[in-house]
Amino acid sequence: MFSFFNSSQSPKVVLTRNLGPDVMPFLERRQDIDLVVWGQDRTCDRKWLLENVQGARALIVILTDSVDQEVLDAAGPQLQVVSTMSVGYDHINVKELAKRNIKLGYTPDVLTDAVADTSIMLALMAGRNARESMTVVNEGKWPEYSWGPFLFAGRQLSASSSSPVRTAGFLGFGRIAQATLTRLIPFGFTHCLYTSSPSSTPTPERDAAIQEAHGLQALRRVDLDTLAAESDIVFVLAPGGAATANLVDEHFLRKMKKTSVLVNTSRGTLVDSHALAKALRERWIWGAGLDVVTGEPQITADHPLVKEPRCIILPHIGSATVETRIDMATLAVKNALAVISGTEMLASLELSS
Amino acid sequence: MFSFFNSSQSPKVVLTRNLGPDVMPFLERRQDIDLVVWGQDRTCDRKWLLENVQGARALIVILTDSVDQEVLDAAGPQLQVVSTMSVGYDHINVKELAKRNIKLGYTPDVLTDAVADTSIMLALMAGRNARESMTVVNEGKWPEYSWGPFLFAGRQLSASSSSPVRTAGFLGFGRIAQATLTRLIPFGFTHCLYTSSPSSTPTPERDAAIQEAHGLQALRRVDLDTLAAESDIVFVLAPGGAATANLVDEHFLRKMKKTSVLVNTSRGTLVDSHALAKALRERWIWGAGLDVVTGEPQITADHPLVKEPRCIILPHIGSATVETRIDMATLAVKNALAVISGTEMLASLELSS
Repeated sequence: MFSFFNSSQSPKVVLTRNLGPDVMPFLERRQDIDLVVWGQDRTCDRKWLLENVQGARALIVILTDSVDQEVLDAAGPQLQVVSTMSVGYDHINVKELAKRNIKLGYTPDVLTDAVADTSIMLALMAGRNARESMTVVNEGKWPEYSWGPFLFAGRQLSASSSSPVRTAGFLGFGRIAQATLTRLIPFGFTHCLYTSSPSSTPTPERDAAIQEAHGLQALRRVDLDTLAAESDIVFVLAPGGAATANLVDEHFLRKMKKTSVLVNTSRGTLVDSHALAKALRERWIWGAGLDVVTGEPQITADHPLVKEPRCIILPHIGSATVETRIDMATLAVKNALAVISGTEMLASLELSS
Repeated sequence: MFSFFNSSQSPKVVLTRNLGPDVMPFLERRQDIDLVVWGQDRTCDRKWLLENVQGARALIVILTDSVDQEVLDAAGPQLQVVSTMSVGYDHINVKELAKRNIKLGYTPDVLTDAVADTSIMLALMAGRNARESMTVVNEGKWPEYSWGPFLFAGRQLSASSSSPVRTAGFLGFGRIAQATLTRLIPFGFTHCLYTSSPSSTPTPERDAAIQEAHGLQALRRVDLDTLAAESDIVFVLAPGGAATANLVDEHFLRKMKKTSVLVNTSRGTLVDSHALAKALRERWIWGAGLDVVTGEPQITADHPLVKEPRCIILPHIGSATVETRIDMATLAVKNALAVISGTEMLASLELSS
């Protein structure tokens, strides 16, 4: 279609993935931009990106696109913004962006609820032996089992007369952890423990406010050993990277209760996979629920964690709901368009070179 | 071991299943009873029961033992109580008990939290395509998938900017349904609908109190069509039996939203399995989470629901937590001993012949 506005004067916006029928019309009806979209339903070819990014004022990318010096060189000096549809930005060379005065947009916050939901789901599934019991049904073996008082019996998330004290432990206590805690309250949780980066400032007032809002008997910042030893569920919800690599190791897992459950919905690198497989095999802990695993997606059927029936593994679907992914895509698009039109982004990172 | 008290004077208590290391010592150290226990880890033989129940003052049973006229005749006229470790009592001839003035103990309430937990777990699993995505990992196919904006995307339980209104629907609104509703509140649920038996009395004051306690925008008793049409999740939590058979049928399922989820943690007979399989296959609804299926445990791998990847099926583990099963077993034992010692049972049914 001929469009008067699609002249070389319109700012070029390059998008590395079709964002679906709920979001694309928002971009496509903007006649004041020159939109270029990778047309296939897979990660865009590097070659395509290097060719098409030339002259772009805005580049909208997803997790699997590497935005490095070569891409920025190919784009040229008019590039004003890189906007990623993700909360992480390991795939983007932020130093290079800062040097060139290119802004970075990302999509925090909008995925908090979806990941908190996933965390609760995994806590329940790991405690209730969901993988083992689903497999019985799916393989047609249900007829082989007859009811017994403790057949398939798992660990209860909710408080009970024999376990009236319920302690949630959070390795990292940011937005998603706090949203997860909120969801645990009607399950009868009474105590909350958390660890934070050793360099972070204590927040006693915030903690007292959260404790009071939820009517908890205690909410305390503790060391890793205490977190492991006292929690009924440990939720791993800290950033990845070298500083947090293998925080959940053999030492940590040996300190956990035999009845407790480990949930990781942040980054695989925080948990030592081999130590966890050993902990499950030797029943140091009750079960594990993982949405992330070190080395993903190169996780094959012979991976030691896949072989453990008490290990629930999901293929990194923490934020994968239609609702949240639409919100993330919309925010990524709005961030890019905001820079082009000279207004403030809704969510941008301060970059320092 | 010789025991002075194990004379024919001590009341005989027959137990059809070993109740595990947390409960058995409580019975075994009672030297004022003559305890007879089926010794194997499977349903007790009928022949054993008929022989051993003779002269019993109390009979403690589980779901899989049929307590009929023949068993009661074999026991003899001194039998005072049948105590079952279950909330259901379809396996017991209650009319015959009433005729003979034998008391019936059961174990309601103690399983409310465990089943409410299971209901939340299934709502999350069905919405988030947990079976399909777990299978990808367990079969070693994760490496074949690369990230995409809507890969594995499910439906979000929590409220979101695109779905700020969240409606929980309950087919039956007793204790477990109300405990499930409580757990949904921090997920951002705003509305609650329920149906009750047509013959039951409306309870506007109770409903207003629940609505206010949870800060809901609405809590309404509705007809089945409205329940189906307006709920984001339908929880089936009504008694089984002829009056509720196939309440969830093709008509009901066709009225549900395409984005909605069905959860059944009560009795399989309430849901028409063939209609549900069709609804999932043809995507009338998003997914289903079932802890119970008509005809269980005779559910084989070629069952139409087992073949639907959007159908999560658990082998009736609703109350199967160590904590709750200990509580149920303890209550069943206490109910039996209470009658023998002439005190009130903690949970008994009024029987009318």
